[in-house]
This record gives sequence, structure tokens and C-alpha cells, in this order.
Amino acid sequence: MQIDILTLFPEMLESVLNSSILGKAQEKEKFTYNLVNFRDYTENKHNKVDDYPYGGGAGMVLSPQPIFDAVNAITGDLKTKPRIVLMCPQGERYSQKKAEEFAKEEHLIIICGHYEGYDERIREHLITDEISIGDFVLTGGELGALVVVDSVVRLLPDVLGNEDSARQDSFSTGLLEHPHYTRPQDFRGMKVPEVLLSGDHAKIEAWRREESLKRTYQRRRDLLENYPLTEEDKKMLQRIEETDN
Amino acid sequence: MQIDILTLFPEMLESVLNSSILGKAQEKEKFTYNLVNFRDYTENKHNKVDDYPYGGGAGMVLSPQPIFDAVNAITGDLKTKPRIVLMCPQGERYSQKKAEEFAKEEHLIIICGHYEGYDERIREHLITDEISIGDFVLTGGELGALVVVDSVVRLLPDVLGNEDSARQDSFSTGLLEHPHYTRPQDFRGMKVPEVLLSGDHAKIEAWRREESLKRTYQRRRDLLENYPLTEEDKKMLQRIEETDN
Repeated sequence: MQIDILTLFPEMLESVLNSSILGKAQEKEKFTYNLVNFRDYTENKHNKVDDYPYGGGAGMVLSPQPIFDAVNAITGDLKTKPRIVLMCPQGERYSQKKAEEFAKEEHLIIICGHYEGYDERIREHLITDEISIGDFVLTGGELGALVVVDSVVRLLPDVLGNEDSARQDSFSTGLLEHPHYTRPQDFRGMKVPEVLLSGDHAKIEAWRREESLKRTYQRRRDLLENYPLTEEDKKMLQRIEETDN
Repeated sequence: MQIDILTLFPEMLESVLNSSILGKAQEKEKFTYNLVNFRDYTENKHNKVDDYPYGGGAGMVLSPQPIFDAVNAITGDLKTKPRIVLMCPQGERYSQKKAEEFAKEEHLIIICGHYEGYDERIREHLITDEISIGDFVLTGGELGALVVVDSVVRLLPDVLGNEDSARQDSFSTGLLEHPHYTRPQDFRGMKVPEVLLSGDHAKIEAWRREESLKRTYQRRRDLLENYPLTEEDKKMLQRIEETDN
């Protein structure tokens, strides 16, 4: 997969893009990236990328010209148009489902603004997706772009080792994970639950299932709404609800 | 504000922490950070930070000892205990409200896992907050930690210039932003709406309000639920609903 990132701060992104799983994915030739400073595409003499908003008001607005031309320089000779993703607070909320969708593409272009808003013509005529990673205010789209890249690249075939893959599966059950414990059994007086030391696998599985349901019930009840509960799950949840009230 | 970040990948974080607003906030002495590789606190001879889970299963679990000791090395001599934030998928969903809450603290410690789960004793006995930035799977907590730092530091007094501040206000109205346009009026045949060129400020304000309501209605209806709509807003929304159906 090829990912082009348009940003005014390319130097911010490199060390994240080259470390850990993203670094390994490049070594395995599963992923390449290209950082494009769209200031290089400005046609005005001061290399300004933004300008005052029509109609007045505070804040600057990113001009259409440098962004259109930076994207065109990438897509000009391509036969199939890549997905062009705009990172912005007005976008669709990013989710694992969206990551899975993006992971099927061969080429993504991600556009990051910084401080400013975007000229609406970029939204209307250039991009295919608008994405927000959450309801919080960030200085720019760069961290969001890194979130998209990390979550997408780790889904590509052969990028994760078996160990990490297994880990990921446990996230995607749709419930929050049960507690984990490792050595020592007694850490400064804090002990591992007896059941995990019992060697009784059925009991351990039941405990983990109940803890997973309990945590989801207590913290993210919304996740249970569309979750296919078994009869056993329902009994567990009833016990959890009774204890909780 | 002082922020300590516990991570196995300190080199991933520096370039983001030193650029843009975060770099400026350090120059203005509003913010300092400290990256702690908790591998340096391991007491075993191979500097292992993780181990197999009790009860079996795939994936490794971060051991309590290095993380407890790395935190204790920071908090040992402090009179007031800082907030200790664990980045994890099971955490509370991060929001602007949480950023505002953290921005009131003088000191934060943020703990990032990578691939692995955390030993539950870290959750139960060490930390004060568990935070998730969204329902997507990332390789580690590092990007989430950067999201927290960026969103918090930009809220500190005197960190943002006036221009940027104004921008931020427009995010926090609780509605999605209206479209923005800047020069040129006609960009390759794509034109700026007439109303924004009219010079009629009341008309411009009404147009912006309606566009803001429309975008929120179309994309994030959930934001309207708790929003204090004026009578004028309600009329606009009724028109929007009628046109939309």
C-alpha cells in the first residue's frame, strides 16, 4: 500500500512512520509513504497556503490552489483514482470498520490541515472521505493521519507477526477485554486471582467471559446493544446487573 | 505543566513533542515533557518488560514491576500526587471535556503500552484515569498520548496566539462548523457562494448558522440532542429536515 500525506509539517511525522510496526511494514515492502509539503505547490510569491475568509470572521482558511495542485501531482498519471481522505473535525468518526475499509485500498492520500479550516471547494470537488478521530480539538490533522496510517497498515496481510495478530483478534470481539495478569503471583501484596492459577480451563474461560461482559457493561454499555449475546452471556449479565445495583 | 510519558518507544515521540504549538509552548515555558523508557526500570537480567498471561492465552502482558517503579521514581518525592493516565482500549472515551479537565492539572503522567495488555494490578493500584481515543486498534498507546498532550497543552493559558484561539472557539460551539471560503472567488470554475460576497453581515451570519445546523444535522445528529437551540434554530432545522427528506 502507498500512502501520500499532504502536510505543512512533514518533519513531525517521519519518526512515527519509521518506527515499530510501520517501520517493519516498510522493510517487508508492504507499505510505502510519501510526505508532501503542499506549500511547495503554492503559486504566490510568498508561498502563502492560506488567506482570509470571505464574509469575515476570525481564523484563516487553507486556499484551494496548493492542495488541488499537490493532489493532482500525485494522481495525474494514475489510472485508478485513490481514496483522498481529509482529516477534519466535521468528518465521519473514525472506527475499526473504516480502518478495515481503507486497508482494502492500494493507495490512500491523506490531507492534513493545521490550525486553519479548509476552503469548501476542497471538500466538494477533491476528496472522497472526511475523517475525524474524535470530539477533541487538535492543532492539526497530523496526529489523526498517523492514527489512520497505523490502524490501516497493521491490518495489511503479513504485516503483524502471529503474536500481535492474536492480540488484535481479542480486540475485535466487540467486547472490552477481560483483565490480564502475569508474574509474579504476589506483587507487593497484590495478588493474582486464584481462578487463573487453578489450571481449570473451563473455569478460566468462564471467568474471563464474565469479566469481559462486566467491564463492557460498566464502561461501554453502548457496545452491548448490537452484540450477539448467548444464553450464557445473558445469565452472566443478569448477575452483573444485580450485583452492580 | 509537566507531562511525563512512560513508553518503550521514546524516539517515536520527540519530533511531534517539539514541533508546532508544543514546541512553542516549551519556548514560552508553559510546558515541559520527560520521556521515560520503563525498560530502564526492569529488575530482571534480560530487561524483559512483559511475560506470559496467567491462565494461558495468546499475547504478552506488561509486568507490573517496571511500570510501578518508573512511576514511583517520578512521584516519590512529590507532595501532591499527579494524575496518572493509562492509554488503553478499555478506557473512557477521550473528549474535549476531558482535555479541559486535564488542562487544570500541573502534572500528568501518561503510560503507553505497545502491543501487549497491562497487568491488572497497574489498573487497580497505580493509575487514576484510563483513556481511549476511539474504537480503533492501534499498535500502541503512543499516538493516543500525543493526542492527549496536544489537546491539553493548547488549552493552557498563553499557549495559543489570538488567531488560533479564535479558531478554537468556533470548534467549541457544540455544532459542526459552517463551510469556509477564501480567494479566489472563482477557482477553476468553482465559485464562492454569492451571500459571502454580499457584505450583508446579518445575511452572512444567518447563512453560516443554517449551514452549521445543516452539517450537524446531516453528519452528527447526536450533537443536536443536548444542544440549546433557539427558536430561530428550530425553524431553520425544520426547513433543513423538509429539504432533506
